[in-house]
Amino acid sequence: MKIDVNSDMGEGFGVYQLCDDSALMNIVSSANIACGFHAGDPAIMTRMVRLAQARGVGIGAHPGLPDRQGFGRKEMSFSADEICQQVVYQLGALSAIARAEGTRVAHLSFHAAMGNMINRDDALALRVMQAVSRIDSQLIIFCQPDTTIERAAQARGLPTLTLFLADRAYDDRGQLVPRGIAGSLIKEETAVRARVRQFLQQGTVTTFSGNTLPVRARSILVHSDTPGSLTLATLVRSEIESCGAMVAPAAEVLAQ
Amino acid sequence: MKIDVNSDMGEGFGVYQLCDDSALMNIVSSANIACGFHAGDPAIMTRMVRLAQARGVGIGAHPGLPDRQGFGRKEMSFSADEICQQVVYQLGALSAIARAEGTRVAHLSFHAAMGNMINRDDALALRVMQAVSRIDSQLIIFCQPDTTIERAAQARGLPTLTLFLADRAYDDRGQLVPRGIAGSLIKEETAVRARVRQFLQQGTVTTFSGNTLPVRARSILVHSDTPGSLTLATLVRSEIESCGAMVAPAAEVLAQ
Amino acid sequence: MKIDVNSDMGEGFGVYQLCDDSALMNIVSSANIACGFHAGDPAIMTRMVRLAQARGVGIGAHPGLPDRQGFGRKEMSFSADEICQQVVYQLGALSAIARAEGTRVAHLSFHAAMGNMINRDDALALRVMQAVSRIDSQLIIFCQPDTTIERAAQARGLPTLTLFLADRAYDDRGQLVPRGIAGSLIKEETAVRARVRQFLQQGTVTTFSGNTLPVRARSILVHSDTPGSLTLATLVRSEIESCGAMVAPAAEVLAQ
Amino acid sequence: MKIDVNSDMGEGFGVYQLCDDSALMNIVSSANIACGFHAGDPAIMTRMVRLAQARGVGIGAHPGLPDRQGFGRKEMSFSADEICQQVVYQLGALSAIARAEGTRVAHLSFHAAMGNMINRDDALALRVMQAVSRIDSQLIIFCQPDTTIERAAQARGLPTLTLFLADRAYDDRGQLVPRGIAGSLIKEETAVRARVRQFLQQGTVTTFSGNTLPVRARSILVHSDTPGSLTLATLVRSEIESCGAMVAPAAEVLAQ
Repeated sequence: MKIDVNSDMGEGFGVYQLCDDSALMNIVSSANIACGFHAGDPAIMTRMVRLAQARGVGIGAHPGLPDRQGFGRKEMSFSADEICQQVVYQLGALSAIARAEGTRVAHLSFHAAMGNMINRDDALALRVMQAVSRIDSQLIIFCQPDTTIERAAQARGLPTLTLFLADRAYDDRGQLVPRGIAGSLIKEETAVRARVRQFLQQGTVTTFSGNTLPVRARSILVHSDTPGSLTLATLVRSEIESCGAMVAPAAEVLAQ
Repeated sequence: MKIDVNSDMGEGFGVYQLCDDSALMNIVSSANIACGFHAGDPAIMTRMVRLAQARGVGIGAHPGLPDRQGFGRKEMSFSADEICQQVVYQLGALSAIARAEGTRVAHLSFHAAMGNMINRDDALALRVMQAVSRIDSQLIIFCQPDTTIERAAQARGLPTLTLFLADRAYDDRGQLVPRGIAGSLIKEETAVRARVRQFLQQGTVTTFSGNTLPVRARSILVHSDTPGSLTLATLVRSEIESCGAMVAPAAEVLAQ
Repeated sequence: MKIDVNSDMGEGFGVYQLCDDSALMNIVSSANIACGFHAGDPAIMTRMVRLAQARGVGIGAHPGLPDRQGFGRKEMSFSADEICQQVVYQLGALSAIARAEGTRVAHLSFHAAMGNMINRDDALALRVMQAVSRIDSQLIIFCQPDTTIERAAQARGLPTLTLFLADRAYDDRGQLVPRGIAGSLIKEETAVRARVRQFLQQGTVTTFSGNTLPVRARSILVHSDTPGSLTLATLVRSEIESCGAMVAPAAEVLAQ
Repeated sequence: MKIDVNSDMGEGFGVYQLCDDSALMNIVSSANIACGFHAGDPAIMTRMVRLAQARGVGIGAHPGLPDRQGFGRKEMSFSADEICQQVVYQLGALSAIARAEGTRVAHLSFHAAMGNMINRDDALALRVMQAVSRIDSQLIIFCQPDTTIERAAQARGLPTLTLFLADRAYDDRGQLVPRGIAGSLIKEETAVRARVRQFLQQGTVTTFSGNTLPVRARSILVHSDTPGSLTLATLVRSEIESCGAMVAPAAEVLAQ
């Protein structure tokens, strides 16, 4: 059984670095690379593409809103057409960098506020997926299961890969418990290991209130921008391998 | 006989506009579209692509240095690798926008300081053309005749289209007389018309000092960012048509 | 009787210019100068300060949200502390430029979304005025009459100058009719002249529905970013002078 | 004997942080705070001012060129007037933030390329100091001894404070050995301690080639943007105190 491990990467800017991208690239099988709007620049993007290529990691575009100051975390008023254009621009930029390096972009994962805005608006999501499919009809869309983004991608014939978050609590409807709430972040090593194991072996997660819920996911998202994120990512990968599963990029997971 | 007329376009940003792009798009046959670094943004780029497409104008990438404040006119210290990455990023961004609109980028024309830096450095020019040819080996490179950029493009197998400036004085070596010098800009209607006619009918230009020089060019570059530029562009096009030539995009000019 | 005429100025960036600032500086008596966030940069700000100083025009800070792309017109999520810091930063920057040129900032006028956000939030407005008064307790706050900003400025002991818009329709509550609505913009010369005259001689405005409303204002705001704005500004000034009133900067108006 | 310890601080942007500013603020006596051009933003500047105020640290402006991407390390083509305007703008912005917090800016230290450009050009340096002295004639200018900046500040009547770098090798002319050269950076704890001690007790430094050179300095600059910089800063301060000297802000050092 193959499972993907993905993370947001290349989210630095100029002299700034948000995480140890080089170390993290040894752990993940898919890298969601910032494309120069909320973070990243051509030099960092190229470095990420080269690292990913050298280590057999799947390359993904991670477009965000045009707001470096706010790291793409604030929703901003844009028309559906403008959001589409921003996605297309960023995807195209990374695709060209990948091609110049002799490789290609395999997947797409939206960043923060841009993702939330698309995920809340059926018409916008359909329009974005329409534009994306014109650029690359094989691009794999990363998404939470049973969301607007997943449905829109499928409606436009794009392959999807659903995510599980091993270090975030879920409620009984399968939604993430908001970050503000105590217990929303799972930090203890044994708890994270247990959740990875349960997800892989039983396809379920134990919710915040103690119920058991099925989880339809084929990739585990590990955070890159919190202290200890590298340790946690290492742990997730090691537990996957302990369970006898194999960490592989999105395209291989879908092809199995 | 077909001849191209090109201009830099979409060089606004947010609420700012540098010229009446919509009017100019009725005159040119090739549009060099700013790609978001020295000017332009995804919304403006998309608008330019749609206008060009609707009017049968060839779409070109017009990449510049990452400096909005200075409009890409100041040289900045970047490695050859970084310049390449910036060209690739911008070309990719516009290409994706074009593809999302059902069309494609046909040519490439460097902006200001970025062009000057590439044109002065054989190794850099070869490297940039290598990267460009990996992305699109049919992309037509716009350039002055007998320059580093022309030679590098040809060395990497890329088609080129050479430019004539109808409103700028040339010296006896075929170089443009620098803007600061009196007489470097030709503004009178009859003079510009005469130069266009001489270029089309005899393939020559009368230099600053009165000599006659052959001009190897297949496109006339008209400025967009000076007062009266729209009038001048209209004049150039009308004179071309008076001479019995046909204004056509770069690809058609090369194919004739 | 003295009345102020003010306009937003220096709202260019780099090569871009939004209006003919130099011509407009001959008409207004107070200039609201963009401070580098939504528009403007140190070079433009300095140019505006020099022009204003040479022509006896009052210098005002015109701070906006940090969003060049959107020209400060989109509301963005910021804490009250952050909004305060942005106002203070911009006011300080212009104040230092003014001092280096041997003059001083006389007034403050908020731009677009920043103004709307402050005007809707009593606590924020009080906090901003508290910070402003620590920097300059004599700074004149430009505002619409009977607004949160006016009350907060007065509560913190800051002088205020209220505005009348000669080219915008008012409703019966004294609010501006939103721009989208037909008739919200008054463009005919005679209508604008009549409104200026009525305002100066009777202190009233005829509302959208035909009623007469008292207007408590001592400055007329003329737009700078619309086609024909220079003509309209000239008209407003000429009508003021025809009425026997004198155009004078805010400080003189308040001192009369 | 009082000696100042200063460092560049607040050089983050949005989510990015370059060093542990809060920890470093416990060690230094003067903070050179980035002012929003090469790094920093109103929120970070305010946080730095509050930290400095709470801990009795002198507040300094640390202006740089307008280039976040390059962290103000690349020289760019600007006129003398433009450089002046950039210095004034940034100094004014920080001054207003300080005043809003009930304190004031005590010193000025130029960042990277901006400092190099000013330090190489007598006329520019004089012009900058002229502008600065109009804003605050008591502002202490931080500089290397015997430089253009020191002379220009003195010519314009501004107080100066000269710097010693404990972790950088000096050549026999008293210049810093360029970073590229092996041995230019002194990293071993005992060596750094010995240099601080020799500087304090004998007022000299042992040069790269083994000679002894007098050092006229009253502040030690500790780096903030290199790994281990916090450890090194702690060491420098502890050695100063071991020598019986007292760490104090620039104003106190000059007043002793």
